[in-house]
Amino acid sequence: MHAVTIRPGAELVWAEHPNPEPGPHQVLVAVETAGINAADLLQRQGFYPAPPGSPPDIPGMEFAGVVLALGSECRRLAVGDRVMGLLGGGAQAELALADEDHLMVVPDGVSWPVAGGFVEAYCTAYDALVLQGGLSVGDRVLVTGAAGGVGTAGVQLAVAAGAEVVASARHREHHDDLRALGAEPFVPDEALTHGPFDLALELVAGQGLTGALDALATGGRVVVIGVGAGARVELDLLKVMQRRAVVRGSTLRARTAAEKSAVLRPVEAHVVPLLAVGRLTVPVAATFPLAEAAAAYERFGAGAKFGKVVLTRS
Amino acid sequence: MHAVTIRPGAELVWAEHPNPEPGPHQVLVAVETAGINAADLLQRQGFYPAPPGSPPDIPGMEFAGVVLALGSECRRLAVGDRVMGLLGGGAQAELALADEDHLMVVPDGVSWPVAGGFVEAYCTAYDALVLQGGLSVGDRVLVTGAAGGVGTAGVQLAVAAGAEVVASARHREHHDDLRALGAEPFVPDEALTHGPFDLALELVAGQGLTGALDALATGGRVVVIGVGAGARVELDLLKVMQRRAVVRGSTLRARTAAEKSAVLRPVEAHVVPLLAVGRLTVPVAATFPLAEAAAAYERFGAGAKFGKVVLTRS
Repeated sequence: MHAVTIRPGAELVWAEHPNPEPGPHQVLVAVETAGINAADLLQRQGFYPAPPGSPPDIPGMEFAGVVLALGSECRRLAVGDRVMGLLGGGAQAELALADEDHLMVVPDGVSWPVAGGFVEAYCTAYDALVLQGGLSVGDRVLVTGAAGGVGTAGVQLAVAAGAEVVASARHREHHDDLRALGAEPFVPDEALTHGPFDLALELVAGQGLTGALDALATGGRVVVIGVGAGARVELDLLKVMQRRAVVRGSTLRARTAAEKSAVLRPVEAHVVPLLAVGRLTVPVAATFPLAEAAAAYERFGAGAKFGKVVLTRS
Repeated sequence: MHAVTIRPGAELVWAEHPNPEPGPHQVLVAVETAGINAADLLQRQGFYPAPPGSPPDIPGMEFAGVVLALGSECRRLAVGDRVMGLLGGGAQAELALADEDHLMVVPDGVSWPVAGGFVEAYCTAYDALVLQGGLSVGDRVLVTGAAGGVGTAGVQLAVAAGAEVVASARHREHHDDLRALGAEPFVPDEALTHGPFDLALELVAGQGLTGALDALATGGRVVVIGVGAGARVELDLLKVMQRRAVVRGSTLRARTAAEKSAVLRPVEAHVVPLLAVGRLTVPVAATFPLAEAAAAYERFGAGAKFGKVVLTRS
């Protein structure tokens, strides 16, 4: 098979690899589409190696495609099923191997680009908002960096959960798109005037986190998933104490297979049905053929996109 | 009645006040003992005013004594009961008024000084460790500033809950006392060599919090209750994300009556029985007569004490 391949010096090429063979609990999938995430760009630069068990040189943490073959212990899926899934790496290839537990059936009517950009974005947003953040009906929710893949997923999830959503995006041309998703958009650094927030999904961090904390309601939670604007922030613990605030963070990729399943199962049960009926979707900013991944990464890195950049088989 | 009274210029005197009269849900208590907390010293200096509904000039958040009179709607207690309770302020007086819901019966055999220093310390520690921190059997728990009132309560609660407890105390003469409570003592700034910790009760903060965060296990929680060593800390969010850590903080005093009841009821049900059978206690470092509160505050402020400083009726 061919796969997007990271070469020394961060070169990104479309190169040949041996076809992967499924183990007993694994599924071999013919990849139709694979979303790009910020982690892929970090991995290309050598800052974020793939976890053990994933191909070290093939990026890609989410994909969709058709089941080609199943390991002997697989029970839930069948050859020919349209699936989408989560990987530690290796998704940006003609063929991908996934744990059967880390795959979900793509609902009828959902396009390949949407399915290929769904899993990492929505699992990350669901884990952060619901499992860590305790998202609940009527919460006032702040999503920073809302125009990206996880941001647009977080906005839609929170709206679907009955929250009032306030969304920051640097580029004003995205504000109408965010309104269309049900959020009240604003430009960063105005958080204070839009609070108080019960829950903040922090995808940017830097000193903007201070603004989010200042605008937090009593008992408010900040879940940090991205730190593109800076990971080192000064925190005023008296403010944390006065607000009885919770500041937490996580990554999805480093988790064990069982921990990932613990996120995928409720996403499959509670979020995929909303995707199936069109209550939420994946805005696809651009698609590129897998073989032209270098151009796609360049587009992703240039920013100012709304939603996901997705690689396609052809 | 007479009460410890804060006068302009942070003067602390023993002065006369009108006798308080219980409202329908209130209980009038003849105070036997009242613990001193760091918040009282801050209040004296003008940094931490009493919440609405509490006397503005009489300090004291915990006390024990005998029920003298009950409001018309009180149902749980009777005149003559030995009680201990939580107040927003006003405990350091001959007479104190408390919500009936914020009082607990003092178990037989528990001395007045122990009862008078129990409620604030144990409610704070229970709320932080159990309700906020999710303390569970087998957790490795760090308590910083472990020699103080909340620290000694936190150590004993965590030991009683089946945790392994590591306790920091600046003064080595307290290390044997901490060992006697079941903790492994160490001097601050050595946190890294004693981790990884599942839960940290942070009573000191400052840059020591960085050490606690560095020594945190995956999924570890830091609950910040005291910031004597500094409230502004630099936080590395990448470490928070990598450890899937939770940093949270709170104060007890600012909460509503109902929120305080939500802490007192489980403490009454689950912790007071352990006090009754001697599985935990309040180490009393010193007692002073209420009328000599200024000397007691001086003793408290000088530090290097193990456990509580408690004021007594006579």
